[in-house]
Amino acid sequence: MNMTTANTARLLITCEDKPGIVQAVSSFLYHQGANITALDQYATEAQGGRYFMRVEFELENLQSRKETLLQTFSQNVAERYEMHWRLAFVSDLKKVGILVSKVDHALLELLWRHARGGLACQITQVVSNHEDLRSAVENFGIPFHVVPVNKENKREAYAKIDELVQGDDLLVLARYMQILDEEFVSKWEMKIINIHHSFLPAFVGANPYKQAHEKGVKLIGATAHYVTADLDQGPIIEQDVERVSHDFTVEQLRELGQDVERNVLARAVKWHLEDRIIVDGNKTVVFQ
Amino acid sequence: MNMTTANTARLLITCEDKPGIVQAVSSFLYHQGANITALDQYATEAQGGRYFMRVEFELENLQSRKETLLQTFSQNVAERYEMHWRLAFVSDLKKVGILVSKVDHALLELLWRHARGGLACQITQVVSNHEDLRSAVENFGIPFHVVPVNKENKREAYAKIDELVQGDDLLVLARYMQILDEEFVSKWEMKIINIHHSFLPAFVGANPYKQAHEKGVKLIGATAHYVTADLDQGPIIEQDVERVSHDFTVEQLRELGQDVERNVLARAVKWHLEDRIIVDGNKTVVFQ
Amino acid sequence: MNMTTANTARLLITCEDKPGIVQAVSSFLYHQGANITALDQYATEAQGGRYFMRVEFELENLQSRKETLLQTFSQNVAERYEMHWRLAFVSDLKKVGILVSKVDHALLELLWRHARGGLACQITQVVSNHEDLRSAVENFGIPFHVVPVNKENKREAYAKIDELVQGDDLLVLARYMQILDEEFVSKWEMKIINIHHSFLPAFVGANPYKQAHEKGVKLIGATAHYVTADLDQGPIIEQDVERVSHDFTVEQLRELGQDVERNVLARAVKWHLEDRIIVDGNKTVVFQ
Amino acid sequence: MNMTTANTARLLITCEDKPGIVQAVSSFLYHQGANITALDQYATEAQGGRYFMRVEFELENLQSRKETLLQTFSQNVAERYEMHWRLAFVSDLKKVGILVSKVDHALLELLWRHARGGLACQITQVVSNHEDLRSAVENFGIPFHVVPVNKENKREAYAKIDELVQGDDLLVLARYMQILDEEFVSKWEMKIINIHHSFLPAFVGANPYKQAHEKGVKLIGATAHYVTADLDQGPIIEQDVERVSHDFTVEQLRELGQDVERNVLARAVKWHLEDRIIVDGNKTVVFQ
Repeated sequence: MNMTTANTARLLITCEDKPGIVQAVSSFLYHQGANITALDQYATEAQGGRYFMRVEFELENLQSRKETLLQTFSQNVAERYEMHWRLAFVSDLKKVGILVSKVDHALLELLWRHARGGLACQITQVVSNHEDLRSAVENFGIPFHVVPVNKENKREAYAKIDELVQGDDLLVLARYMQILDEEFVSKWEMKIINIHHSFLPAFVGANPYKQAHEKGVKLIGATAHYVTADLDQGPIIEQDVERVSHDFTVEQLRELGQDVERNVLARAVKWHLEDRIIVDGNKTVVFQ
Repeated sequence: MNMTTANTARLLITCEDKPGIVQAVSSFLYHQGANITALDQYATEAQGGRYFMRVEFELENLQSRKETLLQTFSQNVAERYEMHWRLAFVSDLKKVGILVSKVDHALLELLWRHARGGLACQITQVVSNHEDLRSAVENFGIPFHVVPVNKENKREAYAKIDELVQGDDLLVLARYMQILDEEFVSKWEMKIINIHHSFLPAFVGANPYKQAHEKGVKLIGATAHYVTADLDQGPIIEQDVERVSHDFTVEQLRELGQDVERNVLARAVKWHLEDRIIVDGNKTVVFQ
Repeated sequence: MNMTTANTARLLITCEDKPGIVQAVSSFLYHQGANITALDQYATEAQGGRYFMRVEFELENLQSRKETLLQTFSQNVAERYEMHWRLAFVSDLKKVGILVSKVDHALLELLWRHARGGLACQITQVVSNHEDLRSAVENFGIPFHVVPVNKENKREAYAKIDELVQGDDLLVLARYMQILDEEFVSKWEMKIINIHHSFLPAFVGANPYKQAHEKGVKLIGATAHYVTADLDQGPIIEQDVERVSHDFTVEQLRELGQDVERNVLARAVKWHLEDRIIVDGNKTVVFQ
Repeated sequence: MNMTTANTARLLITCEDKPGIVQAVSSFLYHQGANITALDQYATEAQGGRYFMRVEFELENLQSRKETLLQTFSQNVAERYEMHWRLAFVSDLKKVGILVSKVDHALLELLWRHARGGLACQITQVVSNHEDLRSAVENFGIPFHVVPVNKENKREAYAKIDELVQGDDLLVLARYMQILDEEFVSKWEMKIINIHHSFLPAFVGANPYKQAHEKGVKLIGATAHYVTADLDQGPIIEQDVERVSHDFTVEQLRELGQDVERNVLARAVKWHLEDRIIVDGNKTVVFQ
């Protein structure tokens, strides 16, 4: 851990928009001796809406001052404005568990970017309902667990997964082709990122690339989102598309779609790890 | 009309895929003395699917040989392969009527591109259900007709419009905010191009930009398509998107969405005018 | 002028990065009773670099408090941090003069967007070295002046133009194909926005689209930048590209290139009008 | 090898544009009993320019008819039109050698896509002037050779590399940071694909991302091209860009630039392997 990392923190705030918030937060940090290195804010309305703020700052001897900082901010600023807030210390690497089935493109993109230093986290494990990707994962020195899931054992299977990922901060569904257990979802709400294909217009149901092919779409895309009880409908984090033409086969659509999926998922995970995302009801505020 | 235009034609073919089609068509043109300047083909399957072809060629004295050419091709080639086909002469400028309501962005893009020579057609008229855009249209020297439409007069109104556009080859709905009369649609099927907003995921119903805003989409887009009885579901011609973020207001989404709409519509109309599109059931083959 | 516009201002600041700037500015605005509606900042280094800030705020009765506000901020904040700064009142519509030669695509994009309410400024006039575009401009109700330029009269011509645009805040070169007079440039430095084609790699000299065609580039683009003494090398505001293929003719490259040019120029002008750009030496900080 | 692969071939033709070429080629294939599955053509001029054609076809028992086919086409068609041509059999997997230095992003993209079946070739070896990437390469089961290069041993080093890659059909420079030996280049001209960063405008010399950062470019990109004696100036195969803003650090520009580089290189190599590229002097014709 270098000095910059050790002394860097990120403050994320959500509250009702009132005059003086920027002033209050920046005064607090100033008097602590902090140096603001990034500040983003967003209000849903010109006046009287919801207010969101992300401040990244550096503070000497941050490691030994964590507790005091949390307490002081809570008492001096947060309470006054009734803020929902959290302070993330860059030195506290987030722990990430990945769930996957048999298709490897999204998983490998994450493992590879992580191996090259592009994702600031600890990947604790990969959990799958199939054996297929064991060696691909273990090659990266990452533990691989198989938890088969079927109609009969669903409750137990997710209890088992829940136990495995107990210490994780974030779960990533890297093409995990099972509908999650409701109880599991409710416990992990907004802490799971999922990726799925997306098209204009949308196609619901099985074999979406085949549907897109039959309909002759000219763009295929992907959406990364947080998982909520309403399957595939949680707050959108990132989306992207690629252009296609009539002579793409279903297989070529799928191949290109997978390229989009892995890039979109990688960006979404990266932003989450960098504490750039605040969820606002059914949508996200992404401070880039 | 310059010499190139006068002597240029485009042959569009759809048929069952069988060996020898390219050979038959290219032999025919070769023996006529034609010079092939562009040739595109597409087959839905490696073998035994549907086959599509577009050939652009130049032929001396084309103007006086039109009839013979049509007859000879029909007898010598088209019948043998049971082709659906048409021969478009570049000198026969297509006649285009535009339908619009009150919003002008899509209309003006077309009028402007046409004025600058970017759309090879004759814009015969603009028909609207409102007076608002009369001077904008008449400034371009193009006739403007108002045909009010409401629940009571729907049938008559579309009879009136049908009469106005009788001589037209193509109708463009440049944000025409009326649901077309069924009889009118069935008469003009595949001869009407419409533009509408599109998102990932799709939002149905009123005020789509507001819905997209509430859902926090990261891309907004537009789709140009041929009109069929199934409203907003006809074969897609072109699509595009632009990236947005959480801090776009509904109004900014709409503004950017309109920019996408006008570009997508302009491209779709251009490709139609250049005989680049063949409809294949519910999708298009676009030879670019 | 509606109430929001009348009471909205934008503060743009450049200074050495020191602790406490956000605190000082936000405290100042808080004590004036202002409501911050947007705040962006950027520092070139984590510590000790240059610092840039844009704050948009609303303040009741702003119109009658302008002078006081300027003075107080200067004394209480700006001097302490040795800021370069300016306060822009949204109600003070910027005056824009456009220079153009014979090609109309960039000019018309601006006039059209302005006519539709998309550019918050007053277009005072169009100045050209040719008569060609007079009616196109006068149709929009905007004065059109012709100032012919040649080797012999260059100095006088630019003195004449300088006189015409005396009251303007910004000049836009919308494909003005003359090399500006040095004296004129030095007087208007950073107050002129230019648009030119751009490619990967770059092509210098005449007929760039022909060069790009010969070289077989796969992307063509455009760059909007502020004009400095070093022709075509001033700070870049915006860039974009479109994809092309081997079968684009020089003419088609030019046509598509013009579409890119007009969009890029329109965005650059819009951002300037919204006080989103701060020039930092040879580059721009664009707060979007 | 499945049946389709075994029976599929691609014919690539360059010649002077004359009437009857399509007819001649398609007649030849028809009489051989071949089924044309893709046909693309391009002429540099409407008449009298250079002509390019790519035909993909399936022919029963192709494996045993290769020689006859080559001979017959040569005598019956190619000679008459003085064609430059080649017939590529899809079953003859191309042999690809990769040259790399220390940076791994472009190399790993190729190895990974190859491992997932996305690049139809045999990667015979990776040659590097450094040891660093040995284990990364050998993990994929691909031989890794180190050939150190310096001023003194340049000639010998490239003689050694030439020996290693003797049997290869294509060399890919996946960020190989050495200027190739002239003799080596002349021997391998148009058989080497290189990738390098690209910007609008272009920046020559060391540390281009630093230059791009200083200049404040808004787009960064990459170009894949064939290598000729004129370093970094050979025929362009593919280009792409990504959007950046003022607050990207040099390091972030480099990271995003590497993402563009690996995608652009992968596409260029894929098209080469699918025989989609014909070089026309200093540019490429890419039949997609």
